[in-house]
Amino acid sequence: MRVEIVAVGTELLLGQIPDTNSQWLGEQLAANGITSHFHQHVGDNHERIVLAFRTALARSDAVIVCGGLGPTQDDITRAALAEVMNVPLERDEHIIETIRAMFASRGRTMPDNNLLQADVPRGASIIAQARGTAPGLICPIGQKVVYAVPGVPYEMSEMFERAILPDLLARERASGRSAVITSRVLRTWGASESALAEVVGERFDALHGDDRVTIAFLASGIEGIKVRVTARGDDDEHATTLLRHEEHEVRALIVEKLGDIIFGIDDESMEDAIAARLLHRGATLAVAESVTGGLIASRLVGVAGASRWFRGGIVSYASEVKFDLLDVPRGPVVSAEAAKAMAVGVRRVLGADIGLSVTGVAGPEEQDGQPAGTVFVGIAIGEQVHEVALRLPGDRPRVRAYSAISALDALRRELDALA
Amino acid sequence: MRVEIVAVGTELLLGQIPDTNSQWLGEQLAANGITSHFHQHVGDNHERIVLAFRTALARSDAVIVCGGLGPTQDDITRAALAEVMNVPLERDEHIIETIRAMFASRGRTMPDNNLLQADVPRGASIIAQARGTAPGLICPIGQKVVYAVPGVPYEMSEMFERAILPDLLARERASGRSAVITSRVLRTWGASESALAEVVGERFDALHGDDRVTIAFLASGIEGIKVRVTARGDDDEHATTLLRHEEHEVRALIVEKLGDIIFGIDDESMEDAIAARLLHRGATLAVAESVTGGLIASRLVGVAGASRWFRGGIVSYASEVKFDLLDVPRGPVVSAEAAKAMAVGVRRVLGADIGLSVTGVAGPEEQDGQPAGTVFVGIAIGEQVHEVALRLPGDRPRVRAYSAISALDALRRELDALA
Repeated sequence: MRVEIVAVGTELLLGQIPDTNSQWLGEQLAANGITSHFHQHVGDNHERIVLAFRTALARSDAVIVCGGLGPTQDDITRAALAEVMNVPLERDEHIIETIRAMFASRGRTMPDNNLLQADVPRGASIIAQARGTAPGLICPIGQKVVYAVPGVPYEMSEMFERAILPDLLARERASGRSAVITSRVLRTWGASESALAEVVGERFDALHGDDRVTIAFLASGIEGIKVRVTARGDDDEHATTLLRHEEHEVRALIVEKLGDIIFGIDDESMEDAIAARLLHRGATLAVAESVTGGLIASRLVGVAGASRWFRGGIVSYASEVKFDLLDVPRGPVVSAEAAKAMAVGVRRVLGADIGLSVTGVAGPEEQDGQPAGTVFVGIAIGEQVHEVALRLPGDRPRVRAYSAISALDALRRELDALA
Repeated sequence: MRVEIVAVGTELLLGQIPDTNSQWLGEQLAANGITSHFHQHVGDNHERIVLAFRTALARSDAVIVCGGLGPTQDDITRAALAEVMNVPLERDEHIIETIRAMFASRGRTMPDNNLLQADVPRGASIIAQARGTAPGLICPIGQKVVYAVPGVPYEMSEMFERAILPDLLARERASGRSAVITSRVLRTWGASESALAEVVGERFDALHGDDRVTIAFLASGIEGIKVRVTARGDDDEHATTLLRHEEHEVRALIVEKLGDIIFGIDDESMEDAIAARLLHRGATLAVAESVTGGLIASRLVGVAGASRWFRGGIVSYASEVKFDLLDVPRGPVVSAEAAKAMAVGVRRVLGADIGLSVTGVAGPEEQDGQPAGTVFVGIAIGEQVHEVALRLPGDRPRVRAYSAISALDALRRELDALA
């Protein structure tokens, strides 16, 4: 069964709000092994909504429509559904009473506008309202079906879980298709998407013709490249077995050809990886930042329980702050020597076990004779003080963002090397 | 001219990432008076991408395709375009050399996979790459056109502004639709969207029936509510005159009914507003952060020329750092007293004229007997030390983000009051 999602609302076309419903529904469908091949956005216009519905029914088996069930003249979904079904709208007295009672329970009178929400295309069944005044609709059209739910995420999600998902799963079982989908994402940092694709290419060849297992790459900007392995099995155990096997193969290839670039799985961030390693060592961390301006500390503080391993940071933006507070020797502040001194200094001033520092040139102008994108990272662990020199591309915000995650990655690799 | 946006990528259907491109493009088109009636999402499948393109070309005049221009086997947009155009793909040597040079400038060799990015449908023209390796494409199909750009927002937005928007506007003018659209966004913080809508409602009544001027609200999360005024005129001067008049009316209403909530215009951020005020006073700033963990310093450093007014910051995450480094009296660290002491302390330690501090409870647990969302801001200017107490809703990341911008807004209002 192929499901298409149609989000109705002119504000979506004008970019006034993000379409979170399609993303949420897409994730829910995927997690339940239900295929979705297309999404659409369409505005509050009768002819175009009808066209969007017909387009969807021509290429998909089921349609989930979000939006256009409100009580105003802009809410056209019911009328559009009736046209596609080629039936009249019929006003349901029971729905009117339900809505009237909802207003009364808040000490209000139901405005006449809400009568529109009781109009039901003949032949459709009702998804009773729970969180808002609009009921949802289940509209059979031949062998296919259109589900209509409100656009308000809070209302849509509850109706999807209560009424639509069970109906879809029942239809899948009735058509003999019972599969479990499971996936795992390997989080990588340090290799380009094309280098990864080349290395993992061996697995594409091995999997050719086997549609139970797929591998996809998701470039996530400064968060690195995600390698998503997905397996479809007859049941949970089968799917998990297939997934584990493929994950093992992919990891082995990556580690062999590209080294220590996998820093976590699924939603784990680079800072989650740092937290895990610090907790494992029982060590605390302090960071001295210049060009990154607080980005690194801010990322680290975002990890729940950071107070167990994070002392804090110093944003030594003005050069004198580096000299006076961190004891950096007077001289060029964009240098390996300055980075190392900053790492040692912040470790001392904040009373931490490990010091991490970043100093560099975000651009566009150069500084200390260094071009934009020149960045030095300092890591002070125990007796040792390490430096990493980077050349980063991009404009000021990109150099800053990439400096932050590169510094965290350098620390991660250092901690891995010492483990 | 009706423009349709097609976002390509299975990860969109699976809900793994939000589709920010369609929202951004929708907003850009609207701001430039260009109509868009449909959006689609489609996955990395050749037949379905071709179907999505044909669907779009049947109902719209121009199509903007985002995604599928990467260097991997999943990147199918080029081949799908060639099929729709009914032409072969031709490998462009010049593009290969450009990509090779991009890798070389970072000390790397171009992987063979990237050769795919040099394939161009015969008859298409190229949008030269600036930020990534993939060039964009402009594909004429009869009287219509398909623009293809990378899915990476950073690459897509630059190509849109440089190449697609000018081409669309030229086509609009060629088809006789010659109007000049100009708009201005008033950046506000501190009022709810419904309060703003009620206040500005007077202007909606005044403008009823006049389709030359429109007002729209764009809720931008922690960046506040944007009020966008758009005017369409016969020429630049006419459009500008209409815009200035309406902007004046809207500003007057907002200031009268809601006070000092307008902090900037267009792309100006809250930190841009701070920078302007500090430069005007010739004053320097230092920030002490706890719960915000570096977010405030990081926002400030993002402003070009920040070194002229920003000394730096201290992320005093561990309580001892507040006591030892900032001289905060031992006691509850989530309190107005602690916030004021932090502001005074960081001003002294970093040698600044003004100190700004934030201490609070991000949650989910309470701290010092204070519930999640309790935040105190301290501002030390000259002899005076001010405090602001906030109660912020939401989970941990939201409390942190809203604390940061609320603190900056508090500082802005304080500087405005002293001006």
